[in-house]
Amino acid sequence: MDAFPAPLRRCLEELQKLPGIGPKSAQRILFALLDRGPEAIGPLAGALTAVAVSVDRCPSCRAYREREERCHLCEDPRRDQGLLCVVESPADVLLVEATGEYGGLYHVLHGLLSPLRGVHPEHLGLESLESRLDGGTLREVILATPPTAEGEATASYLASLTGGRGIRVSRIAFGMPVGADFQFVDAQTLGRSLSGRKDFI
Amino acid sequence: MDAFPAPLRRCLEELQKLPGIGPKSAQRILFALLDRGPEAIGPLAGALTAVAVSVDRCPSCRAYREREERCHLCEDPRRDQGLLCVVESPADVLLVEATGEYGGLYHVLHGLLSPLRGVHPEHLGLESLESRLDGGTLREVILATPPTAEGEATASYLASLTGGRGIRVSRIAFGMPVGADFQFVDAQTLGRSLSGRKDFI
Repeated sequence: MDAFPAPLRRCLEELQKLPGIGPKSAQRILFALLDRGPEAIGPLAGALTAVAVSVDRCPSCRAYREREERCHLCEDPRRDQGLLCVVESPADVLLVEATGEYGGLYHVLHGLLSPLRGVHPEHLGLESLESRLDGGTLREVILATPPTAEGEATASYLASLTGGRGIRVSRIAFGMPVGADFQFVDAQTLGRSLSGRKDFI
Repeated sequence: MDAFPAPLRRCLEELQKLPGIGPKSAQRILFALLDRGPEAIGPLAGALTAVAVSVDRCPSCRAYREREERCHLCEDPRRDQGLLCVVESPADVLLVEATGEYGGLYHVLHGLLSPLRGVHPEHLGLESLESRLDGGTLREVILATPPTAEGEATASYLASLTGGRGIRVSRIAFGMPVGADFQFVDAQTLGRSLSGRKDFI
C-alpha cells in the first residue's frame, strides 16, 4: 500500500468499511473514479454529505425522511391509516411499494431480534410502534419479516406485543415463488406452500 | 424509489455509477452507513474529497501521487533508474511492489490499446514514456501488460516503440501459477509454460 499516496490509502480504507467491499473492489471503485477525473468524485462526496446532513429516521415509522420534514409515508393522507406493515429494513419498504398491492403505513425495525448478536426489542424502535398500536386507528398489522429463524422469532414477538388490542395481526404468505419450477424449490418452501394452501373455488 | 427522500435517491444514483455497484449493493452500502449513524458518512465523504483535491497523476510515470509533491516512485533515489516496468493500472504497481522482486521505475498506461473501444496510443501517455526512453538512462523496459489479446497487442506496440535505442525490452513470464495443479490449468497456460521452458541445470 506504500506505493499509493496517503490520501488514496485513507480513502481505500474508508471504502473497505462498506459492506461487500474488499481491498480489490475498493481499488477498482477509487481508480474508476479517478480515471473519470477528480470532478467525478465531487458529486458522490456531495451526495454522501447531503445524506448525512439532511436525512434522518422518521420518529414514528423509522423510515428515512428529509430531516425536519413531514414523513412522506406517515403523513400522506391518501395512505390507509388503519393498516401497518412491519418490515426489517428501509429497502423492504421499496420492495413492498413496488408490488402496488399496499397503501398503508410502515414500521421499519432496522434489524431483527437476535439475542445472540445482541439485538433486543429496545433496538427495534418498539416504543414508537406500541404508541401507534395504542393510538386506536390501526385495524391490522401485517408482519412482513423474512421467513428465517430471526424473522419468525421477531414476528412472534410482535404478534404477542400487538395482542389484546382488537387489532388483526397477519403474516405475509410463504410458498412457491411465482414462475418457479417444482424441481428448483426446496422442501421447506414447498412444505409452507402446502400447509398454507387455500380453497381454489 | 419514491419511497425514499430525495437526498437518499440522489446518493443511490451516484453510488450506482461505481463499477460493480448495482441498485441492491448501493442500498446495502447506504443503509449500512446510515445505520452506523450520520457521523459515519463524514469520514468517507471527506476521504473522497481529499483524493479529488490532493491526488493527481505524476506527469512522468502517471502513477497517482500527492498533487505538486515529488512522485515517491520516480524520485526515490534508491530505485534503479535504469529499469522501467510498464503496467496497465495503478493497482498493478501495488501488485508488482508486493512481489519484492522489483526496485525500478514504472509507467502506468491507465488502459490497454483497444481500437474497437477507442483506446489509441495517445490515451496511454506514451509521450512521457518516449521522452524517458530518449533520456539515455534506461537499460531495460519490462512489459508487464496482461496475457490477453489487448495486453499482447499493447506489449507489441510498446516493443516497437522502444526498439532502435539499444534498450533491452523484456516481457514478464507466463506459465503455470505457483502451486497450481495440472488438472486445473487451461491448455493455453500450459502451452505458454512449455514454450517458455528454461534449462533446469
